[in-house]
Amino acid sequence: MSDIETRLAALEAKMHDLEDQVALYQLMSAYGPLVDSGDAEATAALWTEDGIYDWGGGPAAASGAVKEGPAGAAYGGDQIAAMVKGEYHQAIIKGGAGHVIGLPHVTVTGDAAVGI
Amino acid sequence: MSDIETRLAALEAKMHDLEDQVALYQLMSAYGPLVDSGDAEATAALWTEDGIYDWGGGPAAASGAVKEGPAGAAYGGDQIAAMVKGEYHQAIIKGGAGHVIGLPHVTVTGDAAVGI
Amino acid sequence: MSDIETRLAALEAKMHDLEDQVALYQLMSAYGPLVDSGDAEATAALWTEDGIYDWGGGPAAASGAVKEGPAGAAYGGDQIAAMVKGEYHQAIIKGGAGHVIGLPHVTVTGDAAVGI
Repeated sequence: MSDIETRLAALEAKMHDLEDQVALYQLMSAYGPLVDSGDAEATAALWTEDGIYDWGGGPAAASGAVKEGPAGAAYGGDQIAAMVKGEYHQAIIKGGAGHVIGLPHVTVTGDAAVGI
Repeated sequence: MSDIETRLAALEAKMHDLEDQVALYQLMSAYGPLVDSGDAEATAALWTEDGIYDWGGGPAAASGAVKEGPAGAAYGGDQIAAMVKGEYHQAIIKGGAGHVIGLPHVTVTGDAAVGI
Repeated sequence: MSDIETRLAALEAKMHDLEDQVALYQLMSAYGPLVDSGDAEATAALWTEDGIYDWGGGPAAASGAVKEGPAGAAYGGDQIAAMVKGEYHQAIIKGGAGHVIGLPHVTVTGDAAVGI
């Protein structure tokens, strides 16, 4: 492999990682405007079809017993969309909800990533 | 076009997009420190000369009738600088204002971009 | 230097800058989850061994007299770790502290950088 080839391949690998990092920034920053505007389907589409959205509340919420409210968990796109359309979330929209998305810490490992 | 040339051109295009993305992060993150420190001219320079800064308030503010306060709109650099120097903004600076800039969702399309 | 070589070198330089930028985003976004979970040593390791963490309070705090509380300054890794383990910080963890890290404005100049 020539020197040029080696350098090109290294750049392509780094570019791939940076593009993934920014794509995850975009995924996470999309949540605020979508959920604040009440677009239930677009919000749910930020997760995979069987994705889980656990927004706190501990074991009780994580068990799936609390699908709405200030702390709970939704399992899959239908439940996530239902949360957005639900009474609690619609009330905070009417109250002027504006989610502020902080800067996430994103660790990309190959095709998997963890963001916190 | 050789394979090397094709790969180089692809990398350059991707680099251009990523640099634009980060430049917009920098533009938006600059607002907080500049406006909190009361630098009216540097704050205004974040917009184009005829840029509009609408920080909420709906149609009444957007009409240009409310140029200062918790929700309003400023048209062009002179009005943006005047807002920073204005009574309301100076009072929140004295109160210890610290704007927290969330992670924006930035969509770059060629030489145009939308950040929310 | 061939055209290919020139373009490769330009891309490598830009990639280096972008990687530094993202590395600083990662460094700063790591603070929230680490300090909220009370990991004193990992939090301290975000600074250099003789790094200074001044989280406000003005001259009195900056003098080193206030090492704990809502506004103060810690000098070096041992003091930063002690702050995390201290009474004030442990109390806010128990109260459910969740630091939101905004988007920083990061200026990289060679091997030095300033983030605000």
